[in-house]
Amino acid sequence: MSDKRWIPETLFDDLGFRMTYAAERVLFEERTAHQDLVLFEHKTFGKMLMLDGATQVTTRDEFVYHEMMSHVPILAHGAATRVLIVGGGDCGIAEEVLKHKGVARLVQVEIDASVVEFSKTHFPEFTGPVLADPRFHLVIADGMDFVATTEERFDVVIVDSTDPQGPGAVLFTREFYAGCRRVMTPGGVMVTQNGVPFFQPEELATSVGHFRSLFAEGTCYVAAIPTYVGGHMAMGFATDDLALRQIEPAELERRWIAAGRFATRYWTPEVQRAAFALPRFIADVVAAA
Amino acid sequence: MSDKRWIPETLFDDLGFRMTYAAERVLFEERTAHQDLVLFEHKTFGKMLMLDGATQVTTRDEFVYHEMMSHVPILAHGAATRVLIVGGGDCGIAEEVLKHKGVARLVQVEIDASVVEFSKTHFPEFTGPVLADPRFHLVIADGMDFVATTEERFDVVIVDSTDPQGPGAVLFTREFYAGCRRVMTPGGVMVTQNGVPFFQPEELATSVGHFRSLFAEGTCYVAAIPTYVGGHMAMGFATDDLALRQIEPAELERRWIAAGRFATRYWTPEVQRAAFALPRFIADVVAAA
Repeated sequence: MSDKRWIPETLFDDLGFRMTYAAERVLFEERTAHQDLVLFEHKTFGKMLMLDGATQVTTRDEFVYHEMMSHVPILAHGAATRVLIVGGGDCGIAEEVLKHKGVARLVQVEIDASVVEFSKTHFPEFTGPVLADPRFHLVIADGMDFVATTEERFDVVIVDSTDPQGPGAVLFTREFYAGCRRVMTPGGVMVTQNGVPFFQPEELATSVGHFRSLFAEGTCYVAAIPTYVGGHMAMGFATDDLALRQIEPAELERRWIAAGRFATRYWTPEVQRAAFALPRFIADVVAAA
Repeated sequence: MSDKRWIPETLFDDLGFRMTYAAERVLFEERTAHQDLVLFEHKTFGKMLMLDGATQVTTRDEFVYHEMMSHVPILAHGAATRVLIVGGGDCGIAEEVLKHKGVARLVQVEIDASVVEFSKTHFPEFTGPVLADPRFHLVIADGMDFVATTEERFDVVIVDSTDPQGPGAVLFTREFYAGCRRVMTPGGVMVTQNGVPFFQPEELATSVGHFRSLFAEGTCYVAAIPTYVGGHMAMGFATDDLALRQIEPAELERRWIAAGRFATRYWTPEVQRAAFALPRFIADVVAAA
């Protein structure tokens, strides 16, 4: 063990384990009554942001989560021009969404302006291209209020929440998902951050149950993210179009070429279809929802 | 942090991070000049075995690795009757292999008799059904010597190695893989434990390069294992039959039904096909091999 400062992720203390990271250099730190935030350089993961003992983002592996939360719904839809992100203050998903030539308008609703300001200072690689893009519109508002009241409609809704403990819990309620449905065009697709099913099966089951009470199709797809410990992370998937999760790779590839054939590091047409092939213990959680 | 004893996995210290586990109860511990072994009860992962600071097996998530190392090659082959496991002393893979009705003979070559004895005492859930099965034959021998000299031939070869540091390194050499090829029947399939590509891309590239110099087809497939940190684990896949990684789920399901339709917790026909859809950064490693 080196004499560097080791920073623990305390998120899973109740489950009896911790990931701990050796910081090369602490770049920023803030402990207030409301939050405990630390940004540091890490040898393997690059720049890492830990908030209240939970890893939020690292520059080395962010591509997995950000690509799979954006390209999958947009290319499943096939003709999305208007996209909504709820949360997503770091702008990592927005950056991926804007790679799609067909997207004419992207609205991001973030409750906390300081998150975006923080990202402008510390993650300019995400915010730079996003804030300079005239298609991007930032709304500082409560996500629940926004989906309950806006007159705008969207083809794709992406819910980039924190975990369902604390202030992010509202983004896992049936009422919030009903609001998302309200702002969606016919044939629209909603995707959500839904945790690690190996540790949090009930979180996934609850969300999928809500999807099914509101949409014709409610399921999830999976991705493996190095700093999200516990096997696959689940991403919720809700739509009225039952065919959208089974689109053939050849068609997905045509849509991706039409979208601009942007570079990816995780997503491929085959990976998109494969992400819906759920390991049996996850499929069982979804089936019982 | 509780006052339980926290046991660290030191495997990735060089990369600057550690997983640490709170032991409910230490069941067995042995520190010698040759190894540092600890077996303990863990709240979330059940019984856990840590050897020289690397997690070897846990009873809560072993099913992912053991199912994917056994069912994938046997069902890709489609008519395997003779199977060889190199390593695999805990008998977790052997237990899965023997669920296939069509397997008439399973030979397991383990270099260290004490590993099997340890497993008989501490993991009887694996060894019980295996050692009682007349199809199972345990050979205590060096794996490299065995594949270089045996007159037996096998339809499927499964290499259940430790990491390529230390005594397990020989199981990642071209010479060893050539021995495996020597003992394989025409149309045979070999699979190997190949580490976590996000951290160890060169290990995967080296093995796949060796496969390609010896077989018509060399690639890998992936699985997400909760206690193997770092996203997907890669399993090497080598065969002369180029079609075997692309078998349709409907055909895999027919083969699984014929094999006895045993229960699984990770594997499904769709999961098997999906496992060969490699995230782009892993596909790039394989393509460059």
